[in-house]
Amino acid sequence: MGGPGIMEPGDAVHPSPWRAVWALPLRLLLLLLLPLLLGRGLRAGAAASSAGAAAEDSSAMEELATEKEAEESHRQDSVSLLTFILLLTLTILTIWLFKHRRVRFLHETGLAMIYGLIVGVILRYGTPATSGRDKSLSCTQEDRAFSTLLVNVSGKFFEYTLKGEISPGKVNSVEQNDMLRKVTFDPEVFFNILLPPIIFHAGYSLKKRHFFRNLGSILAYAFLGTAVSCFIIGNLMYGVVKLMKIVGQLSDKFYYTDCLFFGAIISATDPVTVLAIFNELHADVDLYALLFGESVLNDAVAIVLSSSIVAYQPAGLNTHAFDAAAFFKSVGIFLGIFSGSFTMGAVTGVVTALVTKFTKLHCFPLLETALFFLMSWSTFLLAEACGFTGVVAVLFCGITQAHYTYNNLSVESRSRTKQLFEVLHFLAENFIFSYMGLALFTFQKHVFSPIFIIGAFVAIFLGRAAHIYPLSFFLNLGRRHKIGWNFQHMMMFSGLRGAMAFALAIRDTASYARQMMFTTTLLIVFFTVWIIGGGTTPMLSWLNIRVGVDPDQDPPPNNDSFQVLQGDGPDSVGGNRTKQESAWIFRLWYSFDHNYLKPILTHSGPPLTTTLPAWCGLLARCLTSPQVYDNQEPLREEDSDFILTEGDLTLTYGDSTVTANGSSGSHTASTSLEGGRRTKSSSEEVLERDLGIGDQKVSSRGTPLVFPLQENA
Amino acid sequence: MGGPGIMEPGDAVHPSPWRAVWALPLRLLLLLLLPLLLGRGLRAGAAASSAGAAAEDSSAMEELATEKEAEESHRQDSVSLLTFILLLTLTILTIWLFKHRRVRFLHETGLAMIYGLIVGVILRYGTPATSGRDKSLSCTQEDRAFSTLLVNVSGKFFEYTLKGEISPGKVNSVEQNDMLRKVTFDPEVFFNILLPPIIFHAGYSLKKRHFFRNLGSILAYAFLGTAVSCFIIGNLMYGVVKLMKIVGQLSDKFYYTDCLFFGAIISATDPVTVLAIFNELHADVDLYALLFGESVLNDAVAIVLSSSIVAYQPAGLNTHAFDAAAFFKSVGIFLGIFSGSFTMGAVTGVVTALVTKFTKLHCFPLLETALFFLMSWSTFLLAEACGFTGVVAVLFCGITQAHYTYNNLSVESRSRTKQLFEVLHFLAENFIFSYMGLALFTFQKHVFSPIFIIGAFVAIFLGRAAHIYPLSFFLNLGRRHKIGWNFQHMMMFSGLRGAMAFALAIRDTASYARQMMFTTTLLIVFFTVWIIGGGTTPMLSWLNIRVGVDPDQDPPPNNDSFQVLQGDGPDSVGGNRTKQESAWIFRLWYSFDHNYLKPILTHSGPPLTTTLPAWCGLLARCLTSPQVYDNQEPLREEDSDFILTEGDLTLTYGDSTVTANGSSGSHTASTSLEGGRRTKSSSEEVLERDLGIGDQKVSSRGTPLVFPLQENA
Repeated sequence: MGGPGIMEPGDAVHPSPWRAVWALPLRLLLLLLLPLLLGRGLRAGAAASSAGAAAEDSSAMEELATEKEAEESHRQDSVSLLTFILLLTLTILTIWLFKHRRVRFLHETGLAMIYGLIVGVILRYGTPATSGRDKSLSCTQEDRAFSTLLVNVSGKFFEYTLKGEISPGKVNSVEQNDMLRKVTFDPEVFFNILLPPIIFHAGYSLKKRHFFRNLGSILAYAFLGTAVSCFIIGNLMYGVVKLMKIVGQLSDKFYYTDCLFFGAIISATDPVTVLAIFNELHADVDLYALLFGESVLNDAVAIVLSSSIVAYQPAGLNTHAFDAAAFFKSVGIFLGIFSGSFTMGAVTGVVTALVTKFTKLHCFPLLETALFFLMSWSTFLLAEACGFTGVVAVLFCGITQAHYTYNNLSVESRSRTKQLFEVLHFLAENFIFSYMGLALFTFQKHVFSPIFIIGAFVAIFLGRAAHIYPLSFFLNLGRRHKIGWNFQHMMMFSGLRGAMAFALAIRDTASYARQMMFTTTLLIVFFTVWIIGGGTTPMLSWLNIRVGVDPDQDPPPNNDSFQVLQGDGPDSVGGNRTKQESAWIFRLWYSFDHNYLKPILTHSGPPLTTTLPAWCGLLARCLTSPQVYDNQEPLREEDSDFILTEGDLTLTYGDSTVTANGSSGSHTASTSLEGGRRTKSSSEEVLERDLGIGDQKVSSRGTPLVFPLQENA
Repeated sequence: MGGPGIMEPGDAVHPSPWRAVWALPLRLLLLLLLPLLLGRGLRAGAAASSAGAAAEDSSAMEELATEKEAEESHRQDSVSLLTFILLLTLTILTIWLFKHRRVRFLHETGLAMIYGLIVGVILRYGTPATSGRDKSLSCTQEDRAFSTLLVNVSGKFFEYTLKGEISPGKVNSVEQNDMLRKVTFDPEVFFNILLPPIIFHAGYSLKKRHFFRNLGSILAYAFLGTAVSCFIIGNLMYGVVKLMKIVGQLSDKFYYTDCLFFGAIISATDPVTVLAIFNELHADVDLYALLFGESVLNDAVAIVLSSSIVAYQPAGLNTHAFDAAAFFKSVGIFLGIFSGSFTMGAVTGVVTALVTKFTKLHCFPLLETALFFLMSWSTFLLAEACGFTGVVAVLFCGITQAHYTYNNLSVESRSRTKQLFEVLHFLAENFIFSYMGLALFTFQKHVFSPIFIIGAFVAIFLGRAAHIYPLSFFLNLGRRHKIGWNFQHMMMFSGLRGAMAFALAIRDTASYARQMMFTTTLLIVFFTVWIIGGGTTPMLSWLNIRVGVDPDQDPPPNNDSFQVLQGDGPDSVGGNRTKQESAWIFRLWYSFDHNYLKPILTHSGPPLTTTLPAWCGLLARCLTSPQVYDNQEPLREEDSDFILTEGDLTLTYGDSTVTANGSSGSHTASTSLEGGRRTKSSSEEVLERDLGIGDQKVSSRGTPLVFPLQENA
């Protein structure tokens, strides 16, 4: 994978003349092709429909008309899918041009939205009203809508499924344009098809080392931060809604729970454009880890939070007022759903690891990749089917897969799975963003309320400020590496909203309040992706955040760039103590993981026969893979972002091997000098190195970490 | 790609004890898990539904009930998707076991069907009737069904979409089981989502050399053969239908065109199981090419044929009788759709080749892969939107992409695209087959007619015999390498039906005739995949077809295994003449392709400045990529299955370079001996070598073809 010279940036800087000549015309051609094709599809559809209308006489002709109708419907389906595909194609070509010319003010997602907007305008205002064959039945004898209707049309039974409610004013517009309806996807498509690969990829590609190093802060930002943000935004928006009621701008019900729900869905940040620029400029990895980790986890928190708020339904007639019992029930639901989803994701990951370990599936990379794909997707569906949250499950499944299963895969499957999910994630993400652009004009039930929108912008700004700055202050009390003001400002700035907020908002647009939220969410996503995404590069340099960092050479020394701007003195003693305290739970987990989970689930780690008590001998022998005993199979060189196990294996199994210099504040003894290196035997040291704390000196000297260990094995 | 040792068969032969211990329990666990999960999802759904039913009092509670209902529906969607994913997972694990133990009597597709059947039985007979909330409206004032209904329920408008007609007898059963309906997919899913990757992969992975060597025969089998088969089956089935009418077994209309339609859909062969075994055993490559090529193209022919038959609608009141005008119109439609689809596929392929050539997209493999994927899919939709046939378009798009675009891709994108489509093809194919298994029990509108089914089995047998043997006889008159009796018997035997026949049959199950066809098609697929798939290995050895052939070392010498069984004498003079005659059109095409298309569309081939006339100088310079001029970029070593261009490039550009020994019947002069090799300058020689005719001696001596050319470049 990744042969030499493929990604060479120098390659892209000098456009040859023949390319420059052709790039623009090609793009224009495609741009022109798009409405043309759409028009053609529609005209063909219209022709078929008029043909169908003319043939409504005889019984045989009626059958023919049904066939024609089905054909036309199929054609329109194709056109609507084609629209999105051409949108994505166009996005890819333009974004290539941008990357090629090193334009950074617009990310591919922002571009996808712009193209979506353009096509939305064309569809909305440029296409003829094609459909006059929808029929409004007035079967008013029923008191509620059923999910399925059986309609008896002159003796024949036809089955109809419920699409949704339509506000009375929009009844006519719905009838007018078939095409607009065709490009409107079922919101469940986002949750069942498009979100899982995005979220899974986030978990699977997590840069574990930097993530775990900042885990405490990330968890604080994601859980506390999102809760704070949700609560503040919800309350502010309730004020806005009260104001709207006074001004007379509110035409339907809008409860306090609706406001909290809005706070929850809009608290899911998605700094995809910021992170893309971070990646490209190799910005500070700790800041990257904080932002990425926060956004990954707060998606999970926001989705569970929003469903808990939906579940907050006070008993009796006293609806939509505070009720302690209902509140605690909601909190319980939150905890239950979150831990259930977490467990489910972890369990599927573990099952996949076991299957890939105990079968020789790695002889057939195709089967292995397919199994990996299916198991990962099944996590999502399994969680949804059990009433948990698939997104959360799939996220933790991704992390588990990266930690254990990845280790068992064949070399080919590793690259296959990584590339497969990379492509799926790319396509799904850009699809969602281009759909957002399209939805602004094609969605039929927008409720634009200027007061609500302005209020929401103010609220999300205040909500993020109230979450970043106080939390960072408290976190800095306990952190050895302080989160500097520039980092805090950057995090404050990076509060973009994206796919998750949109997917949550579009999931239910039945009521007036939800429609207003959807419209507002859409505008917030547009604004943040375009403005904040475009302002990332200037902001980075304005805030003096270092770029061009080698992610493997980090972290920066203790009293370097972190404090240099603010002038904080180093407090290494207190810092060390705090680090010790906060890390004990991770250390406990780490040694459990290293001694038991890794040997059980993967082909690495110490043999279970040495770590398990003697009476488990048979079990230990069954579970330990033969690779651990016979070192015939050479240690695989892992992708260091994913798994850092070789070192562990050698370190603890051999029981006296060599590791790198500890960090300056090293706190364990038992060092035996050997060529300037110290020998450590405790797994705590391994943990420290694995989390990237211990290896900084070695890395900065340019010594690869794994190779000297292998020499000793 | 494909690191050393990954696919080593020796690895799989010796199962280690710890694996054997765990494989079976794991599989059983999964098997047990499946119905359990389904049951759980259903029970949860039932609980939610009863909760919803209890809360139908107040207005606020009604909203709650709607939300609960949506939640339940989502949960059921998840469960139904999960069912399929677990089915596929189970299939993968079992098929790994089969491959591991070298069991060849059951292919993964057959296994997928069996698991599908089991789950279908569970769903049909093992799940409770969950849904009592569907409502039968009797709005009988309308004379026909509309695609969309707007229902006014006490002042609120709800939109409903048409699902399909239900025969009056089945109205109750439809209402009974939600789960059965949930696992029933929209037939358009097959055509828009699942078929494209399967068909594209067939085109993209076509072994071009062997395909083109047998192109004439393949085209004859695919076009003439399918037409003959369709006509014979159609007429035989019309006889069966007449018989059924006499016996009184026919309860509704069944026209002659319906019979022909059945003939068309059942003529699409899909010898996937046979070819998998061929691949595994390395059976004769010419036979492989004949079977694979025929099945790939006859899918295309069958789909166009079936839509032409649907379009065969005699004018006036004289419906369903022969009408010359309508017949010729149908023939015209066939030709129009086929050529239109062909053109569309080729054009999209060419556009992709141009885009990948004239942009430096190969610096970003992710973008490149995504673009390739989208462009290939868009072919399908574009063709469907324009009224052509997407499957045919995507097939030729795949071939074009392999021929041109593949050449322009970065090394990483090449493996990415191949692997991506391999995985997609694998998943889609197994999904379709497991869906087939499921459909036998969960499809609501089966019409089992024993006479029709038995008749159909006889008809497809006779149809295939009437197509293979006479055609082979006529083809053998013109072929140098005769198609032996054993090959003919094997082709006769390999008339399996698969995904395409199923997809065509399920696409329209509105009428009684179509429902009967669907049921029969399903049974034919089951029978052929299981029985014929299982009998392939015995049949191969019984027919004395050689296995263990190296595909690059073929073809066999003229008077070897081909004639050894029949004792035909070699007729090299006549054979050569015939070959010459039949090849002139390909030769013409080849030199056009080599001199103009390849230089325009790829980075290889002779510079256009040398092949185009002088007055096109500017254009030629613009279109020729700089790589062709400066040989700085070393010639890439291509996957010989896909592109064979390096030799061409060197051969014609240098104008006097070295190639291999011609075949025994070599007919050109201008040879200059140089170390036992002859120098040839005409592009006809290149063609011959490219089509694998010229290089047989060299290959069999074990000399690689490309390297000596590179030494001279």
